Amino acid sequence: MDNRNHIDLTMPIENHFRWKVDRRLTSSFENGDPFQVTKMGWAVHGFTHIDAPRHIDSRGLTTSSFTFEELIGAASVIDLSDIQDEQEISGDMLEAAGHHVRPEERILIKTAWDERYSPKTPDFWKRSPYLSRNAVDWLYAFKPKAVGFDFPQDYPIRGLLNGEEPQMSQMVSHDRLLRNGILLIEYLCNLAKVNTKRVELIALPLKILEADGAPLRVVVREIFD
Amino acid sequence: MDNRNHIDLTMPIENHFRWKVDRRLTSSFENGDPFQVTKMGWAVHGFTHIDAPRHIDSRGLTTSSFTFEELIGAASVIDLSDIQDEQEISGDMLEAAGHHVRPEERILIKTAWDERYSPKTPDFWKRSPYLSRNAVDWLYAFKPKAVGFDFPQDYPIRGLLNGEEPQMSQMVSHDRLLRNGILLIEYLCNLAKVNTKRVELIALPLKILEADGAPLRVVVREIFD
Repeated sequence: MDNRNHIDLTMPIENHFRWKVDRRLTSSFENGDPFQVTKMGWAVHGFTHIDAPRHIDSRGLTTSSFTFEELIGAASVIDLSDIQDEQEISGDMLEAAGHHVRPEERILIKTAWDERYSPKTPDFWKRSPYLSRNAVDWLYAFKPKAVGFDFPQDYPIRGLLNGEEPQMSQMVSHDRLLRNGILLIEYLCNLAKVNTKRVELIALPLKILEADGAPLRVVVREIFD
Repeated sequence: MDNRNHIDLTMPIENHFRWKVDRRLTSSFENGDPFQVTKMGWAVHGFTHIDAPRHIDSRGLTTSSFTFEELIGAASVIDLSDIQDEQEISGDMLEAAGHHVRPEERILIKTAWDERYSPKTPDFWKRSPYLSRNAVDWLYAFKPKAVGFDFPQDYPIRGLLNGEEPQMSQMVSHDRLLRNGILLIEYLCNLAKVNTKRVELIALPLKILEADGAPLRVVVREIFD
């Protein structure tokens, strides 16, 4: 669904080994119904989605508090697409690749990880690079409104595949950014198609109230300046 | 979730007398889990959503064929907010209020119906105005990419509340527009807040493939010219 100006950074919502999607027709032409109607259900933290602070904090803000100010506007793309499998991302790496980042906007970290391994395979999750604590400190210093990632950004996410209980202190982006009100946009894809350092981000979550997160559609327009 | 520039035209996704929403926590702080995770499910034709032609045509295009070209761009707002309860909308009414409509863009029909009756009540559905066949012919002549409505635009929709089988020939917007590839954005709200005749529409459906429709978030920026 890309076209001249818009690049789609969203993963399709379809059955996946990590996230079960209940999908069926509640009305079908085969049954003689005049309409086809699909019913779907899944956990809102599957596929491309946005976390609200409530995801990790029982008193944290919910999806009801999202604003367009946070979710629509300029974003800086930090290109780390030469990353290695299982490489830790340091603050120095972000500093070296992120001279153009501006405070109080939005940041997208591009590893093009979905080109390396399909998100439909365990390797995407288990061989992923991950953020260090000083990398999230570096991000935090810019007070971004939201940060988006195209890889499982916290080390313990890989352990979830084996049912391991994550240590919150190691869920560094959640613990440092989300807990402090910086929204996390998780499991972006197609960032390989973005060639500019800055983009106009349009991230529109479904209007689900008082929740810990929401699925969303994310598109960007490249900014050539 | 409105701000300076963006007006949210989307209905919240929450339990509703017409559409059952399954919502529960699969992980909760109360249970000692480190995360809160909401699981949700509902029919994709509930709340603010977009219809794909497959909704009424077994060989029709699906959500996989949506393009940003169709869903992001200029739209004309036809203001019919002085409409009466149960009034039929004629082609002449659209012509009188729609001198500014341009071909091959997008059209939003504003009755501010959600200000008259809450969508949570049967009156919203049963007392709604509705399109005549010549009204949809008038719309069709502009070959719009998409048409959005803030009221149940086809007469038989009210009968669905009583389980009445709709006659497709009376589902005039579906039969004439959707069948011919013009996307229908249904159950917009908050159009009362839009005061300009033209807007920049951003309508982003969830990335659900090969389906008859999808929930979406719809925002507009007013165009002052």
